[in-house]
Amino acid sequence: MTYCVALKLNAGLVFLSDSRTNAGLDQIGTFRKMIVYEKPGERFMVLLSAGNLSISQSVREILQVEQIKEHDTGEPITIWNAKSMFDAVRVLGAAVRHVYERDGASLKKAGVDFNVSLIFGGQIKGEGMRLFQVYSPGNFIEATPETPYFQVGESKYGKPVLDRVITPDTPLNEAAKCALVSMDSTLKSNLTVGLPLDLVVYEADRFQTDKVVCIDENNPYFRMMHGSWGQKLREVFDSIEDPMWNGGHTDVPLMVSSSHAKPLKKITTPEERLI
Amino acid sequence: MTYCVALKLNAGLVFLSDSRTNAGLDQIGTFRKMIVYEKPGERFMVLLSAGNLSISQSVREILQVEQIKEHDTGEPITIWNAKSMFDAVRVLGAAVRHVYERDGASLKKAGVDFNVSLIFGGQIKGEGMRLFQVYSPGNFIEATPETPYFQVGESKYGKPVLDRVITPDTPLNEAAKCALVSMDSTLKSNLTVGLPLDLVVYEADRFQTDKVVCIDENNPYFRMMHGSWGQKLREVFDSIEDPMWNGGHTDVPLMVSSSHAKPLKKITTPEERLI
Repeated sequence: MTYCVALKLNAGLVFLSDSRTNAGLDQIGTFRKMIVYEKPGERFMVLLSAGNLSISQSVREILQVEQIKEHDTGEPITIWNAKSMFDAVRVLGAAVRHVYERDGASLKKAGVDFNVSLIFGGQIKGEGMRLFQVYSPGNFIEATPETPYFQVGESKYGKPVLDRVITPDTPLNEAAKCALVSMDSTLKSNLTVGLPLDLVVYEADRFQTDKVVCIDENNPYFRMMHGSWGQKLREVFDSIEDPMWNGGHTDVPLMVSSSHAKPLKKITTPEERLI
Repeated sequence: MTYCVALKLNAGLVFLSDSRTNAGLDQIGTFRKMIVYEKPGERFMVLLSAGNLSISQSVREILQVEQIKEHDTGEPITIWNAKSMFDAVRVLGAAVRHVYERDGASLKKAGVDFNVSLIFGGQIKGEGMRLFQVYSPGNFIEATPETPYFQVGESKYGKPVLDRVITPDTPLNEAAKCALVSMDSTLKSNLTVGLPLDLVVYEADRFQTDKVVCIDENNPYFRMMHGSWGQKLREVFDSIEDPMWNGGHTDVPLMVSSSHAKPLKKITTPEERLI
């Protein structure tokens, strides 16, 4: 599988992806799931992909030449000349539909879902940063201040820490740290997500970045974060009192049912019913 | 949806379930997903259920009267006379198959999967504690020292903390705390899991328990745990240094690609290809 996450903060954008791809347990490979498109000073875009690798690779290939036509002028729009991220993501949606037209019927015959999930974000000169999630049918949604991040792939293990930490005001490097913690939890609990990771941090209104890094098991920051997080999480866990059932320590809140919450009735004979 | 978790420790068993049931977003209900079967001094069993509520309720109803026949003696075995938890879980598997025979075809016609996931654990005098997960076809697996817990329902959000903390040597109350933290993460990230919770802690070789509690938003321990965990998690998060990209602070490990991990090549023109 895959885990990719992208965050849209006021200060910029963070993109993080793993590189494990598998089709069954013995066909495991390393494939990068991120592409950075950059025309310095003018446009900066990042694409993250999850789902069927043959589909996402085709989408990435086609995206470079995909065009949509402007209704009024008939001018072809590509990701390289689009005047807005909204137009650029429409080009991406069209690329997904192109691949569907080519492969959809054959995949269906073979019993394979047309399954691809994409995150596409960035900034084009003249407007603010934007972040989109694109679905298999080529439709898409945009991140908002209320929901400033998107995840694709194995998203659940790493969601709680994002929900606890991320707001639009989160500073960029703190958001990068949060994405890495989210990835670390996913790596811990799911074998189908694996190193190396690709991390990109983009500062608002720069239209380029040099913060592009590939993180493997030797990365000094990730090693420190991985070790500290596991150890400190354990310390926090240990620092919370265990439940007390009988009031032995009066300073620990009791584990008791309140007056409104009735404990379960036990079933003690074959004749009894719950209801 | 649902989240249920059960842990088998050397010291005993822990069972925890939520009570949110939904069929669509506007049909939300509270249904207990745990049943405790207790014949003090002789047998203690707990059943947790996830999946289609009509199926799991039928299984629970039938289980009280379900019988399987011993091959050699022809004696009927029920959960109330089974001499081992293995026999008891076979009775449970038979109850699932009974419901499938009754409802399976009609559900299939309606396009509804026959979907039920059960956790069943406990102890019968004469053998040690045992913990099983039972699938929709009525087959089952047993927890082992290497995998001392089972989850059903929305299991992913709460898995990382279990993976970090739980071993067979974990003390009972610490395991209960861990199950509650796991539940807390799930509640935080998934609306379809909700209070109140049912928690049961069973000490080995007691064949009964008085540690049965229903936890709602007024439970003093859960309130403390929920608040402390969120706050301290945040403190731990803040205590880990943000990534440094340019060596500004020499004491923070750098965020740099190692020699083996090449950063992504950027695409800068429409003609470029990744590969």
